[in-house]
Amino acid sequence: MRSTEGWRASGPATALQRVVLKRRDPRPDDVAVRVDYCGVCHTDLHAVRTHAGDALLVPGHEFTGVVTEVGRDVTRFGVGDPVAVGNIVDSCGSCAMCQAGQENFCHQFPTLTYAGTDRHDGSTTQGGYSREYVVRDRFAYHLPAGLDPAASAPLLCAGITVWEPLHALGVGPGTRVAVAGLGGLGHLAVKLAVALGAKTSVISRSADKAADAHRLGADDLIVTTDLEQLAGARDRFDVVLDTISAPHDLGPYLRLVAMDGTLSQLGYLGPVTVQTMDLLAGRKKLSSSGSGGRRATAAMLAFCAEHGVAADIELLPSARAGEALDRLERGDVRYRFVLDLSDLS
Amino acid sequence: MRSTEGWRASGPATALQRVVLKRRDPRPDDVAVRVDYCGVCHTDLHAVRTHAGDALLVPGHEFTGVVTEVGRDVTRFGVGDPVAVGNIVDSCGSCAMCQAGQENFCHQFPTLTYAGTDRHDGSTTQGGYSREYVVRDRFAYHLPAGLDPAASAPLLCAGITVWEPLHALGVGPGTRVAVAGLGGLGHLAVKLAVALGAKTSVISRSADKAADAHRLGADDLIVTTDLEQLAGARDRFDVVLDTISAPHDLGPYLRLVAMDGTLSQLGYLGPVTVQTMDLLAGRKKLSSSGSGGRRATAAMLAFCAEHGVAADIELLPSARAGEALDRLERGDVRYRFVLDLSDLS
Repeated sequence: MRSTEGWRASGPATALQRVVLKRRDPRPDDVAVRVDYCGVCHTDLHAVRTHAGDALLVPGHEFTGVVTEVGRDVTRFGVGDPVAVGNIVDSCGSCAMCQAGQENFCHQFPTLTYAGTDRHDGSTTQGGYSREYVVRDRFAYHLPAGLDPAASAPLLCAGITVWEPLHALGVGPGTRVAVAGLGGLGHLAVKLAVALGAKTSVISRSADKAADAHRLGADDLIVTTDLEQLAGARDRFDVVLDTISAPHDLGPYLRLVAMDGTLSQLGYLGPVTVQTMDLLAGRKKLSSSGSGGRRATAAMLAFCAEHGVAADIELLPSARAGEALDRLERGDVRYRFVLDLSDLS
Repeated sequence: MRSTEGWRASGPATALQRVVLKRRDPRPDDVAVRVDYCGVCHTDLHAVRTHAGDALLVPGHEFTGVVTEVGRDVTRFGVGDPVAVGNIVDSCGSCAMCQAGQENFCHQFPTLTYAGTDRHDGSTTQGGYSREYVVRDRFAYHLPAGLDPAASAPLLCAGITVWEPLHALGVGPGTRVAVAGLGGLGHLAVKLAVALGAKTSVISRSADKAADAHRLGADDLIVTTDLEQLAGARDRFDVVLDTISAPHDLGPYLRLVAMDGTLSQLGYLGPVTVQTMDLLAGRKKLSSSGSGGRRATAAMLAFCAEHGVAADIELLPSARAGEALDRLERGDVRYRFVLDLSDLS
């Protein structure tokens, strides 16, 4: 075992404690990564807010860094390689989903980057709010040249989560896409949809997002409190990506979907209720997505490097993780906090 | 105005009263139809069971018969033509959905065959449990030669409701389709899926449907109470058509859908709750459908004539409509009641 430093939650408070963490010595197929930058995801906030306090919980599942050591069987990476890690660090490898390259849907459930259970030693995984992470090499990704390591950290969770439905739903030139909610996921969804050539709109409660929507490349902003504008956009979009993280009525968003189009609900992962009539009237579809497989993650990173897509971030020293969580909770971020881990050793 | 006889509900009891009904004299674009056969739909049961009793309610929205009179502008039909009418008898004709041939999704709402409001005189429409119906010619369909008039009556609601998603989801040779619920909709869904060349399974609570499933052309039966069999069918179907009419948990059916596949919920039209995780894990989609536009209805009838598809029916004199509703309520029908209206004048 080896030691590193990290930030742990002790109960539901967002004030995190600096702690010394144990990491396993690299197995033959592991790489050790010096974590440089880790994004702050809504999942982190949820994990902290629902944490009982006894168990060790170090959040963080979208990070970039540099390989510092490789296991003896590792051939894909060498020391010094810039890498990225997302919210999955292992899977069974043998089920139909893993075989299809969709490790995120592993029938035996993928191992999560934190609060997961290691498939070999049964330990609880601890996340990227720490200076070092040891990960199976299959679940580390080369960070393409040209991508800023800090701004690209959020691609590994927020980015892949919106990339997957854009890709699965065949979004490309001419597709009419709307993105509901302009936060961490939403602003990346806009950038990716625009880069894919889609005609892209933003749906938001507040008109003050208009300037940002245009800056991100969107054609227009639909304000949900403007009922006339909402009615005018009925049946207009082939794909609506709903990135709103709080529970909400899907009806108004389904009504914006064109015939045979899809509402992909990405931001809120609890139970959702829909009126069958809202699906029926226009043969609309409701879908969801989360994370992505290894192949899609690598493809997404290559696409982002080619098109200059990364997150709009506010970079904070990792000691200010609690402040980032607090501000994320009240929606005070444009559009993703990233922690700089260089204040840990 | 002219007179005919029909069967009205007076409150939520299924015992219907024989009454004399007024029908309008044909307008220039109307045809008058002698109703010979009318299917008994779950919607009829629901309408009767929720009927307050004061207003006139004559159910019935899937019927076949013969044209007896045509309005002066009608060119598509002549007296003596065999015709069929479904659950929509008018629409605005000018909205985007009507222009696209999807009158069933008319933005101003289509006029329903009964309990709808006529767009011209504001009267409440009365349905096909009667000897005559007067309908705008655009919403009558030629009944193709070779289709039995009694067994094809249910095609006009049950048939088109399952045809639409099969068509919209591109079901054809090689598609893996499962039909949940083997009732009026379900048995037609199996026949149509098989005729389209799909590899078709039936999902049912009871193993005693196995013989019928095979007779209808299905490859196998999955019994939902057999948890091992259910687990073995996980992620197996490109399309699951859920024709179960009672509220139920969609989770077990979503888990049978293959990656990027669709669960089309057709039998129950109220609010439905799904766990986002059931959609997420496999990028699955939830959709619905109901009825169809004029173009699809005509295409479905032509397909059924070509492939010899019609409903398995139990034919009853219309005086026994109440008995049919009672037995439908307890699931005692294989697979659709059709009323013979020749006992009315």
